[in-house]
Amino acid sequence: MTQPEETATKRKTPVVDIHTHMYPSEYISILTSRTSIPLVRNFPNSPDPRLILLEAEVPSLEKATHDGSPSTIPGRPLTKHFTSLAQKLAFMDTHNIAISVLSLANPWLDFLSPTEASPIATSINTSPSLLLRLPSPNRPLTAILSFVTTSLPKFPHCRGIILGTSGLGSGLDDPDMLPIFSALAESNLPVFLHPHYGLPNSVFGPRAADEYGHVLPLALGFPMETTIAVTRMYLAGVFDAVPKLRMILAHSGGTLPFLAGRIESCVLHDQKFARAVKEGTRRTVWDVLREQVYLDAVVYSEVGLRAAVEASGGGKEGAAKLMFGTDHPFFPPVGSEKGDEDGEWESVGLNAQAVNRAFGEGSEEAEMVMGGNAVKVLRLYEQ
Amino acid sequence: MTQPEETATKRKTPVVDIHTHMYPSEYISILTSRTSIPLVRNFPNSPDPRLILLEAEVPSLEKATHDGSPSTIPGRPLTKHFTSLAQKLAFMDTHNIAISVLSLANPWLDFLSPTEASPIATSINTSPSLLLRLPSPNRPLTAILSFVTTSLPKFPHCRGIILGTSGLGSGLDDPDMLPIFSALAESNLPVFLHPHYGLPNSVFGPRAADEYGHVLPLALGFPMETTIAVTRMYLAGVFDAVPKLRMILAHSGGTLPFLAGRIESCVLHDQKFARAVKEGTRRTVWDVLREQVYLDAVVYSEVGLRAAVEASGGGKEGAAKLMFGTDHPFFPPVGSEKGDEDGEWESVGLNAQAVNRAFGEGSEEAEMVMGGNAVKVLRLYEQ
Repeated sequence: MTQPEETATKRKTPVVDIHTHMYPSEYISILTSRTSIPLVRNFPNSPDPRLILLEAEVPSLEKATHDGSPSTIPGRPLTKHFTSLAQKLAFMDTHNIAISVLSLANPWLDFLSPTEASPIATSINTSPSLLLRLPSPNRPLTAILSFVTTSLPKFPHCRGIILGTSGLGSGLDDPDMLPIFSALAESNLPVFLHPHYGLPNSVFGPRAADEYGHVLPLALGFPMETTIAVTRMYLAGVFDAVPKLRMILAHSGGTLPFLAGRIESCVLHDQKFARAVKEGTRRTVWDVLREQVYLDAVVYSEVGLRAAVEASGGGKEGAAKLMFGTDHPFFPPVGSEKGDEDGEWESVGLNAQAVNRAFGEGSEEAEMVMGGNAVKVLRLYEQ
Repeated sequence: MTQPEETATKRKTPVVDIHTHMYPSEYISILTSRTSIPLVRNFPNSPDPRLILLEAEVPSLEKATHDGSPSTIPGRPLTKHFTSLAQKLAFMDTHNIAISVLSLANPWLDFLSPTEASPIATSINTSPSLLLRLPSPNRPLTAILSFVTTSLPKFPHCRGIILGTSGLGSGLDDPDMLPIFSALAESNLPVFLHPHYGLPNSVFGPRAADEYGHVLPLALGFPMETTIAVTRMYLAGVFDAVPKLRMILAHSGGTLPFLAGRIESCVLHDQKFARAVKEGTRRTVWDVLREQVYLDAVVYSEVGLRAAVEASGGGKEGAAKLMFGTDHPFFPPVGSEKGDEDGEWESVGLNAQAVNRAFGEGSEEAEMVMGGNAVKVLRLYEQ
């Protein structure tokens, strides 16, 4: 299979978006049938159905349910950006993205029992509404980050697994997760770790729900959840037990690059780890970051991106660990003037700009982050 | 007042430690009298009393209370490093620290009602056991970051205020905090924001308490608490309402430098802030970081320190915002060989090393971070 034709820009390698989501129709049906969060609901005074995912939205959902035609409609509009493959392709064209590595967005099927979830997972993993196919010169499109079912997904377009932080219900440091991680590692399928639960509402205080929109749960809760999940895996020894395991951490690792030094220091200074420290055999957080972890480049700043690269080994070694993403269809433009969802999205521009500022536009490292790494790591041109 | 005599090293400016705590005897008495966390308790099989501060320690405290002479003793030893001024001076000599800017450690008097707390706060702020005095050539020692009482502390050695994230009980975005912030700003007293509560135990999962020691609450809970608190202040408009307010954020801002881009993007993409964004009058998180925020350099890695400097404006402007600290008496050496608490502390070395690596040992920026900035910002040589 050859590489897709070059686009009109000066970019040498095609842009790959490794963090981009869709909800196929089978999944929307499930969410629409639900009465508690997560759910999809119609309101008479809202043009689109509303997608209500966050625990932080419970108060506004309750208020809206009570009010009927509420003045403040909870959740976010479930536009065609969430559900339409044609829209995904248009979005890709607008932003010069050659390949999208699709994943189902949160909360996946966390709200179902394993028995209920398994057949639905299989159905979604192979949904015809996604028209899944490998990238080709004809229409460079989509590989997929599927999600775990009772058996591993073996279909040819699957290039990895998207996984939330709950695992089997008690976190990814659960020993019962080890066989799953081992099977994924043996199948050469990286795990894309993605947040959903954020943090309990209480930590954001009594004013957050009314006054700060979704900012605190999304800006802080999500990356903190990811950081906690992967640190729990590290402390439980998952990376040592499954040395072939490869993780891709959403949102540039949450906050892991910034906090890695503090985690390492806290381990060095905790009686619980004194023996492992003394024996000198333990692998540090830095070792794991360099050897088993990739980060998406969805951090919206040059400051964050540089820290992510440095934590991943720095220089070209570090740049080889970062992969561009958009988080589409989340974070659409807001406001009456810039609010054209068919135009360019500022959320995408912020991340592309961070890559250009950190490495220099067109530099080898920028090309790697914008697409070259994903092609290699996710074997995008392999059958 | 002249500067202290130069020490034996090649450093041009004296090293100032702006993040260093003590518990005066008056405070230890209060903690010893308590039956719920935070508290100090003696166990028959522990040489030192135990300091038990974290909510995460509730299970181990309950187990230890039940067992009498427990095999796992909760909390940490309350050594002379926490209580003795002579020990603080010895620690400073060992680490070539010329000036310590002392503060009471968490949880301050958060567990008392304002009526109960007020007289005790005054007593601790002026405790003779701390022998507070301004730095002098004779014995370069201590300014203090005091804490808020019903009236502002006006004694001459006070150079700022240490403040937890709870404020008057519902966070620092509480409108009732504004007069306090205004008064502090008018008095030119910066606020040293310091965590204590971390995050609810539940987020660390069922294995944390037994298996990971204090790592998760200290390495992740603490910096996340700080980040949430200051972001709530930002979203509530506190920095705009009190433009003279100056904050010093513990642990290099928690995770603020890394997440600032994501916070900014989430604001840009939230309907709640659409009008402010459209009007173009709002100050960004980056503006606030550059104009009203200082960060300590307690981040234990070059990666984190660089991100902190870049988020603060980068280059010399950014370096002017960072101030070295040790977090003494927390994070003493662990283990039988390195566990000599009278020797050099690795926790101190990690942070000094990060400064040297980020800026080059002896560089102008390194000297600024290691002491020069603190002398200016906290007016350490002014009467």
